[in-house]
Amino acid sequence: MLDVMLLQIDRSASPAVYEQLANGLIKLIRNGVLKPGTKLPSIRQMAAALDIHPRTVVAAYEEMSAQDWIYSKPRSGMVVSENLPDLKPRTFRSTLPAVLQKPAAKEQDPHRKYKYVINDGFPDHRIAPVEQLLKLQRQAFYDDDAERYSMYTDVRGSVRLRNVLSGHLSNSRGIVMTPDMLLLTRGAQMAIYVAAAALIKPGDEVLVGDPGYRLATAVFEQLGARITYIPVDTEGIDVDLIEKACRRKFRLLYIVPHHHHPTTVTLSAARRMKLLSLIRKYKFYTIEDDYDYEFHYTHRPILPLASAEHEGHVLYIGSITKNLAASMRLGYLVAGDAFIHRAAAIKKLMDLRGDLLFEEALAAMFEDGTMHRHIRKSLKLYQERRDLFCALLERELGEYISFKVPDGGMAVWVQFTRKVKLSVIAEKAAAAGLKMSDGSSYDAAGKQLNGLRMGFAAMNEREMKKVVAILRKILESS
Amino acid sequence: MLDVMLLQIDRSASPAVYEQLANGLIKLIRNGVLKPGTKLPSIRQMAAALDIHPRTVVAAYEEMSAQDWIYSKPRSGMVVSENLPDLKPRTFRSTLPAVLQKPAAKEQDPHRKYKYVINDGFPDHRIAPVEQLLKLQRQAFYDDDAERYSMYTDVRGSVRLRNVLSGHLSNSRGIVMTPDMLLLTRGAQMAIYVAAAALIKPGDEVLVGDPGYRLATAVFEQLGARITYIPVDTEGIDVDLIEKACRRKFRLLYIVPHHHHPTTVTLSAARRMKLLSLIRKYKFYTIEDDYDYEFHYTHRPILPLASAEHEGHVLYIGSITKNLAASMRLGYLVAGDAFIHRAAAIKKLMDLRGDLLFEEALAAMFEDGTMHRHIRKSLKLYQERRDLFCALLERELGEYISFKVPDGGMAVWVQFTRKVKLSVIAEKAAAAGLKMSDGSSYDAAGKQLNGLRMGFAAMNEREMKKVVAILRKILESS
Repeated sequence: MLDVMLLQIDRSASPAVYEQLANGLIKLIRNGVLKPGTKLPSIRQMAAALDIHPRTVVAAYEEMSAQDWIYSKPRSGMVVSENLPDLKPRTFRSTLPAVLQKPAAKEQDPHRKYKYVINDGFPDHRIAPVEQLLKLQRQAFYDDDAERYSMYTDVRGSVRLRNVLSGHLSNSRGIVMTPDMLLLTRGAQMAIYVAAAALIKPGDEVLVGDPGYRLATAVFEQLGARITYIPVDTEGIDVDLIEKACRRKFRLLYIVPHHHHPTTVTLSAARRMKLLSLIRKYKFYTIEDDYDYEFHYTHRPILPLASAEHEGHVLYIGSITKNLAASMRLGYLVAGDAFIHRAAAIKKLMDLRGDLLFEEALAAMFEDGTMHRHIRKSLKLYQERRDLFCALLERELGEYISFKVPDGGMAVWVQFTRKVKLSVIAEKAAAAGLKMSDGSSYDAAGKQLNGLRMGFAAMNEREMKKVVAILRKILESS
Repeated sequence: MLDVMLLQIDRSASPAVYEQLANGLIKLIRNGVLKPGTKLPSIRQMAAALDIHPRTVVAAYEEMSAQDWIYSKPRSGMVVSENLPDLKPRTFRSTLPAVLQKPAAKEQDPHRKYKYVINDGFPDHRIAPVEQLLKLQRQAFYDDDAERYSMYTDVRGSVRLRNVLSGHLSNSRGIVMTPDMLLLTRGAQMAIYVAAAALIKPGDEVLVGDPGYRLATAVFEQLGARITYIPVDTEGIDVDLIEKACRRKFRLLYIVPHHHHPTTVTLSAARRMKLLSLIRKYKFYTIEDDYDYEFHYTHRPILPLASAEHEGHVLYIGSITKNLAASMRLGYLVAGDAFIHRAAAIKKLMDLRGDLLFEEALAAMFEDGTMHRHIRKSLKLYQERRDLFCALLERELGEYISFKVPDGGMAVWVQFTRKVKLSVIAEKAAAAGLKMSDGSSYDAAGKQLNGLRMGFAAMNEREMKKVVAILRKILESS
């Protein structure tokens, strides 16, 4: 007969008592404690033993027999089903450590303790047109169509947003394109992944910059590619070395020609021209990651490779996130319609549908000019912030760091002198309430770059001064 | 000398005239029309030829020289830079068809014409607590923390949501777990992709149901797996055949034990028990896709495999989308913390960060009980709708179809008699304003299933009657 002590009933806990009882008994059957054919205690016995109402036991037994775990045998009462496989009794040792066997020990959010943060180069969400965006999302939701047909929605993303965005890209970047050359993704990262997955087979060679964007390289590695690192200097990636690599027919080149990540260098016009001629001659695919296009301060941004003749070999990737706020993620891939078709099929495997409401709202904000106004406004503000931040860096930290004022983008690439270790600074900064990178994510190759990107766009004057003061104090005492 | 007819200036168009001019000239340099060393027309000549203000030409030339395309040569005026590679003149034939060379021909949204839709089994967004969700999203946005630290956010997703969700899964499904066993994704599809990508190497064998969920199979194929189809009958997937496959050590089993997709069959208790014992004995990985758990009408849902002892080999996948609305996508993967760590690293490659604001808002709605109330409310409503819809199907279409009333979920699996082709019905339905699947996506193997899932949850009584009437009319006249 069943030892009712094996059943734990907690009247104050959330699942109803009859469910707890049924769950407990099912567990015992599964564990092999209650074997097929075993007679369960009668309703009266069980109710008395557990000090619960007989109706609760009835409900539990009904539940279990509906699920085929037990059945009612004439003159025997409830019996464990015989057509279940005869399991050997299991040990009660779980693979989980004992501390985890209690429900849900809560995690703490590690960030709540920081007062300041240096990010990788994100916009200031405080100036983003969020009220309007949320209002438009709500409208899109109640406009039945977007929601009702979502199952049949185009996997490339909202038709409305692809229409306005392809117009915007044509006008701002000189890319001759149509909406069917556009795939919307959850962010530029997803665009990199799907473009690469559509191209790379295990063993393929992929060229990336050194230093370079670690999470792109990681994508290619995940897909089984062999990575070749091409040095990046003050004029951008070394195109002569790319030319040499052309002799052995590599599969893909990944470049960030505007404001290279992490160093913010822009590819020189001469190299850009030469690269285009190589692409046309050797017909290799190039992912042009242009995440930061809109933010160029000195003069108008240089047109992307994708705006020139490349015979379909440049896959252009951009991001709307950088125009709004880090949490509002939307990226895109521009390529020939056949390639987009293939990439969209892969995208669907990892993300059935994008955020339709967000996409519709964003489309409306492009249509009514809100996005253009916002981009102009942020461009002006971020240029002021760049100037202010670089002046502060020079004046307060000049002796400890080296950096170049970036032509564009939302971050400065700052390298600390060798004698001060960035990992130590980051640790001390954290203790002083400032969250910053320890530089390891920018230095995957372990080259002692001792540098990090310092995003200035999301800091106002007060915050910048505070951040720089914290760093100065740490450096002075190091 | 340059033929200015090659430059097209449109005063009414969006980029400023000086930008159009600079772009046009840069294109000509790139194309090889303007060769290195070529002298450009003087400011006065250019202004006169194009009928624009001389200052506009100055601005364009300044722009171009800032970008190193041209330079000012003493006594010669502006000259195309010589340090650009000597490109051979290109033909003007573009790889784009002529029609695409005009900016952005707009696409039409193909769905706006439909008045009714049969979906795959989605909730009714009209009853979802959207107002509250949007309000909470707005709050989360202005709560600086979520946004400011987004760069450093845990890739597994919002700590707050993982805390409440792991509690919810423990209570509702009996899964003993902690928040570090949980990875949040953009939807169940992404959870399938990352779990599979963490396990599968090209050539690995993966077992799936037949019929089965096409987009899961497509993920495994994309990752290079060999697929073995295991028949699904009225008791679910054939576990004896899985046992046979165990002899040859396959890599992964993918199952949908509750309301199998597409057929809505639930795995019988006996097979479930046997499958668990096989998992423990042969230690193969199983993805348990439990997208529909909450919606079980006859009795309490059977506990998932993941709630039993499986020594870390069951990877449990669920969806919050099914509790809210198709556009509000959130899925999750439950597994051992080491596996989650690996899966999270892969997830980051395709999606840097989830939608933090949405996750925070959802967490608040779990915390204050809104989600539980909403789930209870939808369960009741969808059960009524299932009964009504199945009664209508039986009465109005009984002679043309076969189906079984599903125990749970949000769709009925309906097969049409052989003599009426589903593709023809879907075409006629479209003409009558009803969007429905032609069944091909449920029949990837081409087995003439002639069936589709008919989602009933998102249709009210009026809509159901209308949809069934349209179908009846089509069938009567076929």
